[in-house]
Amino acid sequence: MTPSSPEVRNRPSTAPEERQFVLTFGCPDSTGIVAKLSSFLAERGGWITEAGYFTDPDSNWFFTRQAIRAESIDTTIEQLREEFAPLAEEFGPRAKWSFTDTAQVKKAVLLVSKEGHCLHDLLGRVAENDYPMEVVAVVGNHENLRYIAENHNVPFFHVPFPKDAVGKRKAFDQVAEIVNGYDPDAIVLARFMQILPPDLCEMWAGRVLNIHHSFLPSFMGARPYHQAYSRGVKLIGATCHYATGDLDDGPIIEQDVIRVTHKDTPSEMQRLGRDAEKQVLARGLRFHLEDRVLVYGNRTVVFD
Amino acid sequence: MTPSSPEVRNRPSTAPEERQFVLTFGCPDSTGIVAKLSSFLAERGGWITEAGYFTDPDSNWFFTRQAIRAESIDTTIEQLREEFAPLAEEFGPRAKWSFTDTAQVKKAVLLVSKEGHCLHDLLGRVAENDYPMEVVAVVGNHENLRYIAENHNVPFFHVPFPKDAVGKRKAFDQVAEIVNGYDPDAIVLARFMQILPPDLCEMWAGRVLNIHHSFLPSFMGARPYHQAYSRGVKLIGATCHYATGDLDDGPIIEQDVIRVTHKDTPSEMQRLGRDAEKQVLARGLRFHLEDRVLVYGNRTVVFD
Amino acid sequence: MTPSSPEVRNRPSTAPEERQFVLTFGCPDSTGIVAKLSSFLAERGGWITEAGYFTDPDSNWFFTRQAIRAESIDTTIEQLREEFAPLAEEFGPRAKWSFTDTAQVKKAVLLVSKEGHCLHDLLGRVAENDYPMEVVAVVGNHENLRYIAENHNVPFFHVPFPKDAVGKRKAFDQVAEIVNGYDPDAIVLARFMQILPPDLCEMWAGRVLNIHHSFLPSFMGARPYHQAYSRGVKLIGATCHYATGDLDDGPIIEQDVIRVTHKDTPSEMQRLGRDAEKQVLARGLRFHLEDRVLVYGNRTVVFD
Amino acid sequence: MTPSSPEVRNRPSTAPEERQFVLTFGCPDSTGIVAKLSSFLAERGGWITEAGYFTDPDSNWFFTRQAIRAESIDTTIEQLREEFAPLAEEFGPRAKWSFTDTAQVKKAVLLVSKEGHCLHDLLGRVAENDYPMEVVAVVGNHENLRYIAENHNVPFFHVPFPKDAVGKRKAFDQVAEIVNGYDPDAIVLARFMQILPPDLCEMWAGRVLNIHHSFLPSFMGARPYHQAYSRGVKLIGATCHYATGDLDDGPIIEQDVIRVTHKDTPSEMQRLGRDAEKQVLARGLRFHLEDRVLVYGNRTVVFD
Repeated sequence: MTPSSPEVRNRPSTAPEERQFVLTFGCPDSTGIVAKLSSFLAERGGWITEAGYFTDPDSNWFFTRQAIRAESIDTTIEQLREEFAPLAEEFGPRAKWSFTDTAQVKKAVLLVSKEGHCLHDLLGRVAENDYPMEVVAVVGNHENLRYIAENHNVPFFHVPFPKDAVGKRKAFDQVAEIVNGYDPDAIVLARFMQILPPDLCEMWAGRVLNIHHSFLPSFMGARPYHQAYSRGVKLIGATCHYATGDLDDGPIIEQDVIRVTHKDTPSEMQRLGRDAEKQVLARGLRFHLEDRVLVYGNRTVVFD
Repeated sequence: MTPSSPEVRNRPSTAPEERQFVLTFGCPDSTGIVAKLSSFLAERGGWITEAGYFTDPDSNWFFTRQAIRAESIDTTIEQLREEFAPLAEEFGPRAKWSFTDTAQVKKAVLLVSKEGHCLHDLLGRVAENDYPMEVVAVVGNHENLRYIAENHNVPFFHVPFPKDAVGKRKAFDQVAEIVNGYDPDAIVLARFMQILPPDLCEMWAGRVLNIHHSFLPSFMGARPYHQAYSRGVKLIGATCHYATGDLDDGPIIEQDVIRVTHKDTPSEMQRLGRDAEKQVLARGLRFHLEDRVLVYGNRTVVFD
Repeated sequence: MTPSSPEVRNRPSTAPEERQFVLTFGCPDSTGIVAKLSSFLAERGGWITEAGYFTDPDSNWFFTRQAIRAESIDTTIEQLREEFAPLAEEFGPRAKWSFTDTAQVKKAVLLVSKEGHCLHDLLGRVAENDYPMEVVAVVGNHENLRYIAENHNVPFFHVPFPKDAVGKRKAFDQVAEIVNGYDPDAIVLARFMQILPPDLCEMWAGRVLNIHHSFLPSFMGARPYHQAYSRGVKLIGATCHYATGDLDDGPIIEQDVIRVTHKDTPSEMQRLGRDAEKQVLARGLRFHLEDRVLVYGNRTVVFD
Repeated sequence: MTPSSPEVRNRPSTAPEERQFVLTFGCPDSTGIVAKLSSFLAERGGWITEAGYFTDPDSNWFFTRQAIRAESIDTTIEQLREEFAPLAEEFGPRAKWSFTDTAQVKKAVLLVSKEGHCLHDLLGRVAENDYPMEVVAVVGNHENLRYIAENHNVPFFHVPFPKDAVGKRKAFDQVAEIVNGYDPDAIVLARFMQILPPDLCEMWAGRVLNIHHSFLPSFMGARPYHQAYSRGVKLIGATCHYATGDLDDGPIIEQDVIRVTHKDTPSEMQRLGRDAEKQVLARGLRFHLEDRVLVYGNRTVVFD
C-alpha cells in the first residue's frame, strides 16, 4: 500500500480558531439545569458558539449540546471533564454526559460489500478536508473495493463471508477483531449487506451506523427498491440509523427521499437511490461524529 | 343557502384557446401504435399540445395520453369518439381508451369529517378559478364544516355515522345515494376518517381518491402521526391514492414529505402534515381530473 | 356582515397548558449572558420548553429566544417585564428585548389586491384553529375579494388605488389610517401588488411582511414569473420578507422553491407558484407571530 | 501512471439488452410530424422505449427525443442516419436532428482547479459503472488534484494559469489544444474557476457545461456563497448550464437548492453547497450525455 500521491489525505486538519470543546448532557428535567450548566462554563470564560436544548415531554428527559470555543477556556479537555464530573453528579445517577475536543479527530471503520458509491463518497469528502473523521480501516466481504481504500491510503481487510451459519459467524468474529483493534468512534455499515449479529450490535451500541436504502419503516429487509417498485410509490428514500438487534429498526438519525415516476424500473431506482444513500449517510454520520446525536429509547435528538 | 357574494364561483371557466380534447389509451404493446394514433390525429388536423407515452416492461402494456387543441379539430368530442372506436378495436379487445373535452368540467363530491383544511384548500382553489372541477356536493358526518361548503355555495349534506355496524352501513347507503345522484367524476375522501366498505370501493372504482396522512406504505391505518412519532422518523408524509377494498393499499397517485425534528410532538406533526395533505391531495386530484392517471394493477402511470 | 355560521372562527383559542411566555433578547456578546438569563428564569421557577441561541460572528451580537410554560411562573407578563428590565440594563443601552404572552393573540391586517389564494389560505388556517393570529381587517384595492373576508366575519375595506401619484398617495394614507386604527402586530402584503411608500415602511418597520413571487434576489420587481420563464430556470420560488424602503430587498424570513420544466408557461408557473407563495407566507408569518424572527441589518435570525 | 488495481474502470459497459438508438429532432411545428417520425421507426420495427415531445409556444418550434431498443432494428446507426436524412429534409432546412448509439460511449474532458469534490464524485460514478461516459482527460490549473485522476487511470494535464492576460490566453490555448485532441462530447468545467474566453465558448458551443455555485440568476460572478450570506437568503443553490460568452448566463440545464439558516457562515455554506454542486452537475451532465437536452435560444428542453 503506497500512497499514490503525497496529497492524498485521510484525516482532516482543524484550524486552531475552529477547535471546540463539545458538551453533551442528558438527565431528568428540572428547573435550573441550564442556569447551572451555563454558570459552569461562564466561570471558566467559556465562549459558547452553539447551544441546543430539548426536553422530551414523554420521558421528561432533558438534553443539551453545547459547543465552546476551545481558545476561550484555559484548560485541557481532561481537566474540564474532571471539573465537570462533580456538577454532573448533582443531577442524579442517571445523568449522562460527554466532553469532547474536536482536535481529537474521530476514527471510523467502514464495512463494505460490492457497491462502492458510499465508500467513494466518504473517502472523497475526507480527502477534500471536508469531513471530521479519519478512516482507519475498510473491511470488505469482497475484494473489489480494495482499490478505493488503497487509493486513499486506507488499509483494506478482505473477510470473505461464507453462506453457512458457522462460517458466517467466524467471519463476523474476524471482523470484530479487526474493528476492535482500532477502537473506532464509528463503525459504518456502508452498504455492507450482511446482518450484524445482536451481540456485535450490543458490543458496539451507539457506534454502529447503517444506511438502509429505503425510507424506513417502509420496505425493511431485503431488496427495498424492488419492494418500492412493486408498491408503486412516488418517492424512494434512504435512512441512516443506529444498528440494533432489531433489523432496520434502530434509532433513526437522518432520512431523505428522491422523486421517482412510473418510468423508473427497480434498477433505475437503485441508481437514483444511490444519491440519497450517499447524502443521508454523509449527513447522519457527520451528526454522529460531531456529537450531535443523543439517543433516547428508539428515538434520537439531533442538534443540527 | 344564499350566495354570500356574487363573486363566489365554484366552477372554472375555460378560455376557448385552452380547450383541449384529451385521449388516454392503453393496450398490449406492439410496434407501430404511436404511428397509427398520431396518423389518426394528423388526418383530422389535430394539433397535439402534449403527449406522454409509456410501456410497462413487466406487463408489456402500452399507455399514452395526448392532448389536442380543440380548435384545431373541426368536430365534436362525440364524433371523435365514434371515429376512434374502430381504430381502437384494431388493438384488440383489451384496449382501453377515453376521449374527453376539457370544456366539460369534471364534477366532484367531497366527503369530510371534522377537519376542514382540505375542504378550505380545494374550495379556495376552485373559487380562485385555479382548479379544473366543480364541487357539486359536500357530505360530512359532522355538521361543523357546513359553513365552508355553504360559503362557497355548495350543498352540504350531513350524514351522521353511528358507531354500530348496522347504523354505519345505513349511513354509507345514504352517502352512496347522495353521491350517485350527482354521478361525479371524482369522489374525494378529504380526511373523511371512515373506512369505505368494499362494495362502494368497487362501485366507484377508479373514481374514489383518498388522502392518507402518511408516506405509505409506512403507517397505514389509524393515527399515522402518532405512529410516526413513536418510530422517530425525520420526515412525515402524505399519500393520495385510489381507494380500494384493501385499506390504504390502493394505487398511489402522488406523495410528498415534510421534514420534522425531535422537537415535533404528534400534534405538531399533525399541524405540519396538514400542509402536505393539502398539497398532495390537490396535486393528485388534479392529475385525476385532467385524465393524467392510468392505473395498471396496483400502480399508476401519471403523465404530468 | 353577518356570520354565515356560528362555527366560523377568526381567532385561535389557546389551551391553558400550552400558554407560554416568550422572551426574545439581543445584545453585544460576552461571556455569561446565558447564565444570567437562565438564572433569572430559574429563580422564578420558569420551565423552559424551548430555547434558541445565536451569536452573529460579524457583528458579535448575541440573540436568544426562550419559551417558558406560563403555568410554571406565578406572575403576570407585565410583572415579568418589570422584573426583567433591570437585568436587561446590565447588558448595556443597546440591548433589545421583548416578553410576550401567547394568551394575548396577535392581530393582523391583510392587504390584498385581486388574487385571493393567500387570503383563502390564511383565513382557512385561522378558521381551522391552526394559526396564532386574529385577522382584524382586510384592506383591498379591489372589491372582488370582499366575499372571502366576509365569509370569515372579517371587516373588509375597499380602498381604490388610482394610477396617478397624488391619488395613490391619498389611497395609501387611507390604508394607513385603517391599519393604524387596529394597531396590528402584523401588516401582511398578501399579494398586494402596490409598492408601499418608504414612510409607511418606516412607520411599520418590523411589522410589514411581504410575499414576493420569486426566489429573491432573483427576479425582483414586476412579473417575476415572466422573468423566470425568460431566463429558463428549472426552479421557481417565493420569498417572505420584511418590507423596507428598498423594494424586494428587505430582510428575508423564509423562502422555498418548486420544480418547473420547459413545459411550464408563465401562466403555468403562476399557478404552480401560488402553492409556494401560500406556504412560504404562512410559514414566515407564523415565525413572525411567534416572535421567532430577530432582525439584524438586512438579515434575520429565525429560531424555528 | 499505473492502474492501482485492475478493477478500476473509467468506462461504462452497456448490457446488449439496454443498448439504444436515440433520436433527437427539432423543426418548426406543423401537424403530422409525430405521425411521420413514428411511421419511419415503425416501418423498421423500431421498439420505442421512451419518447418525449414538446412544442415551444413562443417560437412554435417542435422538439422530440425518442429512444429505440437497438435490438429491435436490424441496422447500424450509420445506416439509420442515412435513411433518416431524406425524411428530415421534408421538414425544411432548419430542422436539426441527431441519431446516436448508446453503445458508443460518450467522451468527456474535465477542467478543474483546486477543489476536487466534483472530480471525486464524477470519477466515482464512472468507477461504479453508474454513469454513461468515459473521462478521457482531466486538465487542472493546479497540480493538487492530479492524484484523483491518476487513481482512476485518467491522464492529468497541468496547465498553470498566470495572472496576466497574455499568459492566461496562452494557457487557454494550451487547454484548447489538449481538449481538441480528444474531440470530446462534453467539456466539463468542474469548478474550474477560470472564465472561458468567448472564442472557446463559441468553438465548443453546446458541449461545454459549467457548474455554478449559486441558484442562477442570483449571485452571478465571484464568491456566490459570500453574496448569498450577505443577502441573508434561506436557501442556497447550484446551477448546471451551458457556458456561453455571457458569463453565468448560458442555457440552464439543471438546478437545485439546499436549506441554510442564520447559523451558516459563508464557509459552512460552501461545505453544504458542495453537495448541491455535485448532484446538480452529475444530473445535468447525465442529461447532456444521454442526449436529453435540446437548446433553443437561452432555454433548454430537458426530456427526463
